[in-house]
Amino acid sequence: MSVTAAKGFTAAGIAAGIKQNGNPDLALVVNQGPSRAAAGVFTSNRVKAAPVLWSEQVLRGGEVSAVILNSGGANACTGPKGFQDTHATAEKVAEVLDGHNAGEVAVCSTGLIGVLLPMDKLLPGVETAAAQLSEHGGEKAAIAIKTTDTVHKTSVATGAGWTVGGMAKGAGMLAPGLATMLVVLTTDADLPADALDRALRAATRVTFDRVDSDGCMSTNDTVLLLASGASEVTPDEAEFAEAVRQVCDDLGQQLIRDAEGASKDIRIEVVNAATEDDAVEVGRSIARNNLLKCAIHGEDPNWGRVLSAIGTTSAAFEPDQLNVAINGVWVCKNGGVGEDRDLVDMRYREVHIVADLAAGSATATVWTNDLTADYVHENSAYSS
Amino acid sequence: MSVTAAKGFTAAGIAAGIKQNGNPDLALVVNQGPSRAAAGVFTSNRVKAAPVLWSEQVLRGGEVSAVILNSGGANACTGPKGFQDTHATAEKVAEVLDGHNAGEVAVCSTGLIGVLLPMDKLLPGVETAAAQLSEHGGEKAAIAIKTTDTVHKTSVATGAGWTVGGMAKGAGMLAPGLATMLVVLTTDADLPADALDRALRAATRVTFDRVDSDGCMSTNDTVLLLASGASEVTPDEAEFAEAVRQVCDDLGQQLIRDAEGASKDIRIEVVNAATEDDAVEVGRSIARNNLLKCAIHGEDPNWGRVLSAIGTTSAAFEPDQLNVAINGVWVCKNGGVGEDRDLVDMRYREVHIVADLAAGSATATVWTNDLTADYVHENSAYSS
Repeated sequence: MSVTAAKGFTAAGIAAGIKQNGNPDLALVVNQGPSRAAAGVFTSNRVKAAPVLWSEQVLRGGEVSAVILNSGGANACTGPKGFQDTHATAEKVAEVLDGHNAGEVAVCSTGLIGVLLPMDKLLPGVETAAAQLSEHGGEKAAIAIKTTDTVHKTSVATGAGWTVGGMAKGAGMLAPGLATMLVVLTTDADLPADALDRALRAATRVTFDRVDSDGCMSTNDTVLLLASGASEVTPDEAEFAEAVRQVCDDLGQQLIRDAEGASKDIRIEVVNAATEDDAVEVGRSIARNNLLKCAIHGEDPNWGRVLSAIGTTSAAFEPDQLNVAINGVWVCKNGGVGEDRDLVDMRYREVHIVADLAAGSATATVWTNDLTADYVHENSAYSS
Repeated sequence: MSVTAAKGFTAAGIAAGIKQNGNPDLALVVNQGPSRAAAGVFTSNRVKAAPVLWSEQVLRGGEVSAVILNSGGANACTGPKGFQDTHATAEKVAEVLDGHNAGEVAVCSTGLIGVLLPMDKLLPGVETAAAQLSEHGGEKAAIAIKTTDTVHKTSVATGAGWTVGGMAKGAGMLAPGLATMLVVLTTDADLPADALDRALRAATRVTFDRVDSDGCMSTNDTVLLLASGASEVTPDEAEFAEAVRQVCDDLGQQLIRDAEGASKDIRIEVVNAATEDDAVEVGRSIARNNLLKCAIHGEDPNWGRVLSAIGTTSAAFEPDQLNVAINGVWVCKNGGVGEDRDLVDMRYREVHIVADLAAGSATATVWTNDLTADYVHENSAYSS
């Protein structure tokens, strides 16, 4: 259902020849209106790819008429030429579509850093993609943005007379991100840019921002929300925000399940924190602990590594009051040995860690994966 | 030469039966004086093992007469019983040695977190170790503190009539640390505790603190420096500090070369930073980037991952002024493509990354390793 689930959008996904293996690598999403209101959230990495610098500028205007996305090259660390290429791509999209201007065309790229895009293939590809735009093109667009993804990711939520849909690629998150995460959400709800912005930021804060597969932050991460207004319905803002959150949450879960080399999906729930910030800091610290991630891979409920990860944070807690449960077994109580670790069943893909800070009532959930030999293999060979 | 290179020290290393495989697991180092001045640096993890809590207290007095170290169990997250066990161990050492009291006996432990030590084996082991104390026991002590170490680590530096020697275990660092790092340094120089403390802090700040194998911080990391004064020489403080730095640097390099599963030793030199703090922050960020560490493992000079790691820091820099060299080839210039990456020769174990921030004149070097499937295997199976 993807980006064409909502009314007022067409999309296409084609193979332009950017990827050497001939797989689809160029997606185009067009907002047919009547509204063109939009919001965007971008990587917080200070080394930003050319398409991020471009699209941030586009979003300042609060309107996006089309999004062009390529896989097969990140166009990051490519200097002035890279930025010119992004600009030329937006101009090409505006040229082949009626009634569009480049200043309202967002650009997203994903792939290897430090390589210029083959513009001799990309620009003709824009024409091909435009010719194939369809109200049923969302699936193909989602396929064309894949890099190391093994499956394409889409999601849809519906309200009373309106729809939010979207597509995602990557196995990471916004801040930070594993491989680049690109997400395009569309809706036929009729809402102004500032309402879209509030809904998108609220949603990404508790979804993509808490998906921390390998602690690495991409130069290209982008999440866009485009509204066509084609439903002619202006939903209640809270109801709309909840639908956006649902779609983001669903796509975030799909990213985690498809993370590079992962064999376990790890849900880290931090409870009884003094503040939500504390809970997130602790969740991230646990999520980034390579030793723990290896232990989980080995189906070893090594709670000591959870405690040592908590110990590196500035969160409020007392070491002798910490409690940790793994898959429902409180293996650590009051900072020491708790229930028998042999009771922990870790045969299944999903692993649930609860870290109880005993310092308040705030909570947060962070998602990550185990660290596997497959992750090493995949990322050792990525650019060669 | 280890901890008995300097005059005035005896040591022993024995198998007390703490490790189930029967390998040596208990080391004793005794300062025969006349001085007992000492300094210590400990993990900054807020979840501290019982022996760290104990030894921090001992070091407040500025005197250490003996150090008892066990492998086979970290005695971390073991609650009041764990602390009682540490206390009992120190008391046992004081009891079996003449003229010692427990308040001057430092205790170090390394191994699995969350498991109580087998005191029925450890305490008799103290007697055995004491009976085997020897001026030539440094090597055996170094062997007895190994956990996943494949080799034992010792180092010695000499001045005019005085010596600094030491032993280390682990494959990590102080803050943070991979596996626990334990280091005992001894000297026959005659210096007061405050001079030892200055020398030790200055040395660890630029050596162990910048060895960042996997970004994980241990609950047990301890570095001790004991002075016997047996040489009757009071060296120039700067000269002494340099000798301590040399020994720490040498031991730190040995830790990196023996890091779990590593196939590459990576020296990250950050140059032209605005401040040394900036340089260290950038060096650490690069050292902790799993994607880069995988790429280095694959002998892939993927400089884009260096830039994306720099981009996550708060250091002063402009993205379009960053330069990166890998093994002498400036593969990134001015934030973009530099010299041909195919010129980079990565066949050897040592890899040298230079990150030029073009923002000042400060510099720092951080050491790390590549991320390998062997690391995953070793740490998946550690406690099982």
